Amino acid sequence: MTQFNRRDFLRAVGATGGAGAMLATMGALGLTPTAQAATRGAPYRAPRPGDFTLTGRAAAKVVVLGGGIAGLTTAYELGKAGYDCTVLEARDRAGGRNFTVRGGDTTTDLYGNRQTARFSDGQYMNAGPARIAQWMVTLDYCRELGVPIEVFTNVNADAYLYNESAGMTAPVRYRAAKADVFGYVTELLAKAGDQGALDAALTADDRERLMEFLKDYGDLGDSFDYTGSTRRGYSVWPAAAGVPGVVDTAVPTASEVFASGVGRYFAFEFEFDQAMLMFQPVGGMDRIPHALSQAIGSRRIRTGCAVTEVTDRADGVTVTYTQGGRTRTVDADYCVAAMPPNILAKVPHNLGSGVQSALEAITPSSAGKIGLEYRSRWWETDHRIYGGITETDLDVTHIWHPSYGFHGPRGVLIGYYNTGSKADSYAALSPQAREARAVAAGVKIYGEKYRSELVSSFSHHWRQFPYQEASWHSTPGGPDAPRYKPLTQPTGRVYFAGDWLSYMDAWQHGAFTSARTAVTALHQRVLA
Amino acid sequence: MTQFNRRDFLRAVGATGGAGAMLATMGALGLTPTAQAATRGAPYRAPRPGDFTLTGRAAAKVVVLGGGIAGLTTAYELGKAGYDCTVLEARDRAGGRNFTVRGGDTTTDLYGNRQTARFSDGQYMNAGPARIAQWMVTLDYCRELGVPIEVFTNVNADAYLYNESAGMTAPVRYRAAKADVFGYVTELLAKAGDQGALDAALTADDRERLMEFLKDYGDLGDSFDYTGSTRRGYSVWPAAAGVPGVVDTAVPTASEVFASGVGRYFAFEFEFDQAMLMFQPVGGMDRIPHALSQAIGSRRIRTGCAVTEVTDRADGVTVTYTQGGRTRTVDADYCVAAMPPNILAKVPHNLGSGVQSALEAITPSSAGKIGLEYRSRWWETDHRIYGGITETDLDVTHIWHPSYGFHGPRGVLIGYYNTGSKADSYAALSPQAREARAVAAGVKIYGEKYRSELVSSFSHHWRQFPYQEASWHSTPGGPDAPRYKPLTQPTGRVYFAGDWLSYMDAWQHGAFTSARTAVTALHQRVLA
Repeated sequence: MTQFNRRDFLRAVGATGGAGAMLATMGALGLTPTAQAATRGAPYRAPRPGDFTLTGRAAAKVVVLGGGIAGLTTAYELGKAGYDCTVLEARDRAGGRNFTVRGGDTTTDLYGNRQTARFSDGQYMNAGPARIAQWMVTLDYCRELGVPIEVFTNVNADAYLYNESAGMTAPVRYRAAKADVFGYVTELLAKAGDQGALDAALTADDRERLMEFLKDYGDLGDSFDYTGSTRRGYSVWPAAAGVPGVVDTAVPTASEVFASGVGRYFAFEFEFDQAMLMFQPVGGMDRIPHALSQAIGSRRIRTGCAVTEVTDRADGVTVTYTQGGRTRTVDADYCVAAMPPNILAKVPHNLGSGVQSALEAITPSSAGKIGLEYRSRWWETDHRIYGGITETDLDVTHIWHPSYGFHGPRGVLIGYYNTGSKADSYAALSPQAREARAVAAGVKIYGEKYRSELVSSFSHHWRQFPYQEASWHSTPGGPDAPRYKPLTQPTGRVYFAGDWLSYMDAWQHGAFTSARTAVTALHQRVLA
Repeated sequence: MTQFNRRDFLRAVGATGGAGAMLATMGALGLTPTAQAATRGAPYRAPRPGDFTLTGRAAAKVVVLGGGIAGLTTAYELGKAGYDCTVLEARDRAGGRNFTVRGGDTTTDLYGNRQTARFSDGQYMNAGPARIAQWMVTLDYCRELGVPIEVFTNVNADAYLYNESAGMTAPVRYRAAKADVFGYVTELLAKAGDQGALDAALTADDRERLMEFLKDYGDLGDSFDYTGSTRRGYSVWPAAAGVPGVVDTAVPTASEVFASGVGRYFAFEFEFDQAMLMFQPVGGMDRIPHALSQAIGSRRIRTGCAVTEVTDRADGVTVTYTQGGRTRTVDADYCVAAMPPNILAKVPHNLGSGVQSALEAITPSSAGKIGLEYRSRWWETDHRIYGGITETDLDVTHIWHPSYGFHGPRGVLIGYYNTGSKADSYAALSPQAREARAVAAGVKIYGEKYRSELVSSFSHHWRQFPYQEASWHSTPGGPDAPRYKPLTQPTGRVYFAGDWLSYMDAWQHGAFTSARTAVTALHQRVLA
């Protein structure tokens, strides 16, 4: 992922010697306040009614294909300047992969599995996007649209790690795993330093600072040994006089810790898109498309309308679609195609082979989730886990504890969030068999309540879902590769938008910013 | 803090050789599900009305000194079995140091500074306790009392670090600081390993696993160099096609990173009492004493009642207090003294010199906070910081971003949360001067909006606050040292309770569990 020129760190350190003179450049460590604006990308300027005042031009008629985040955003943004937008959405609801499942929601997958969610009032699962990083434009839309947000619990020291293939017979908490891994790793480095192994790489000052950091970071003793730590947690937590707390003294050896592979999960929380704090809309991610739809106006969004043909002409675009078994058409000045590329590729059009081969080059991926509703929040009362993600090497991969409804009577765990062949293998099962398999995995980690407290489940697999057939997409070479130019530039009067045309595929941020790009280009053309 | 027998890690690793055989013990890495109950300490059994059914005994009359968390919990728990409790609280509200400041609240400190908070509706600061760990019994009380909770944002990758004394002229974000520190530290260890410096300490298998971990954890290149990382964040974040994102290529050198001292803040989030996820009551921490007070019944809680004498007799306890300038007394069968020890030590009593010297041995500490209300949430819009704590080496020490009201029109930052002499030096200033000094510090980190958007402030210093005179306490030797036995055991008919009599001083968990201990002992005596 790193995109930098390689620098020789050892040489750099050797060249600097003491540290004092270099400190004037410490601003480079991060982003200065004055540079903040730049971190949000080029400023976006939404179309406004006043844009047309002096031009003699008027807002155009635009047909938007697909009512997912990119399509809705296109209609919303163009609507700000008075464009006459029509959104055609194949499914019975807008939002696309932004899909919050609540009691009563019904789906039928491509295998014919029909499910109706039986979640209690107030309980839901976000089957699609579920988390938002602080820097993402998604939060700007939440603010602008008045969608309240709350913390999404992406990382939790008290959640579990469980690597069955490494021989673990019980889960370990993140806090214990981190204490042990960092304890032993810092001990190793401190001892290497003690033996002079770092003398060539570090000045005496740097070495002293490093040793101080290692001791603190690893909770090492005076002789730089790791012998356990209160950071691991307690078997009896400290309380009143008489209860000083009991720390587990059965600290595993370094070899055991390394062999367990628990350290592989730690870098996740450093990733630029996953680092806490993260956020979610209060009440479900679909509060975003719901608010967008309200702002656009429901009369402009036609659901149950599957696009069957797109014809670009010199003076406009004609889109044919079916609704309730009848074929209809929309004529517009422009079209923004915000459908999944793999679906759009199946639609007859006259946009040329460049468009078609670009659409076909973008390949669909698989992901699945199951929501497990429980009659009690036993993970809070019995395990003292309030939110967060348990990581496993089982085929369920990730187990999510809910980030809402703490201390409530019920709760919905995400029993699996898996991708690729693991997701496909679950998708191939009946919903009942998916539940049984997910629960069997969870029981290994959490015990029998994972089965006995279960009320109902609902599973969703985007690859096997009509009008999506992908959880997200792979765009070989990146969206700015030459082969995708017929998509990143307008083809005739047709523009394209979607997270799949961004560098943040699978994130709403990609859909929002891609829509903004299409809107900006279209609006400039209309104004020109 | 570690309380373990020292183990020779290098010897242990040498003895184990391969890792396979050791994996059966991996359960020791953490807490098995069946062991969960034990992590919450000895089970507490609340008094019940039925406890008296067959004994021929009856619930007694109890006077509780102090309406903080320990005092309220005592009355609440004893009340479950029908005890006739009276709580005497010197101030005009219950809660003790659990104090949520809202618009209209007025305080006068020991220096005579009178302040009235002018916070807007819905805005507040928790002047005392503000965060709750998942394992703490505090959360059990929130559940039992129906106090809704939400995430307290104790750590945030996008919050800042700022060490002025290290020469930093601009803040660095946690995410960038972590990427750099871990990048260079893992590079050092990987290169030491490459040079054979770890061969004596590690088996070949362990070394291979370690190198794999280091590469991942430090985001190192193929030759184990750290040359920056997307984890540092972007100057332009990735977005639509055309905007791949711009990573800051001005990565500081290892020497600069070590000299900046940013790594000193990283271990905080591993501490057993501070690791995320943490929680807070929705609407202010005082929702807890509010709910306790409601459950106890307001007629049992007498505010404005300063205790002036405690007399233990063979058949009861008499407590004298002043209320509205008049002297009154309460006679009861038992007394639970849940006042701060430093305040209690000034109250005449006949409990003996052992009690008095124990009280006097416990010393008060200082801490202060200032709440800064802003007319906009510029830290969210301009800095993209949603919650979390900025750490500094300035005398403000910690700056807290609010964990509630995201995207709202206004917000209250904690402009300083400092302790010891730093807190005392702020306390010695007028409230206006405290604000000016805190704002000047914040401007260095956040820029001019830290001053220009400010609406009002409210500062609070527990050491200089009547009837408290301490933020928390130091109990030399720990609460189970022999000198404190007159406090941890009943003295006559008087029991003692408070966080200062626990191993979790300064945490409500300590107050709750201490109260439970006193309640259990008193109830057993009554039943005996």
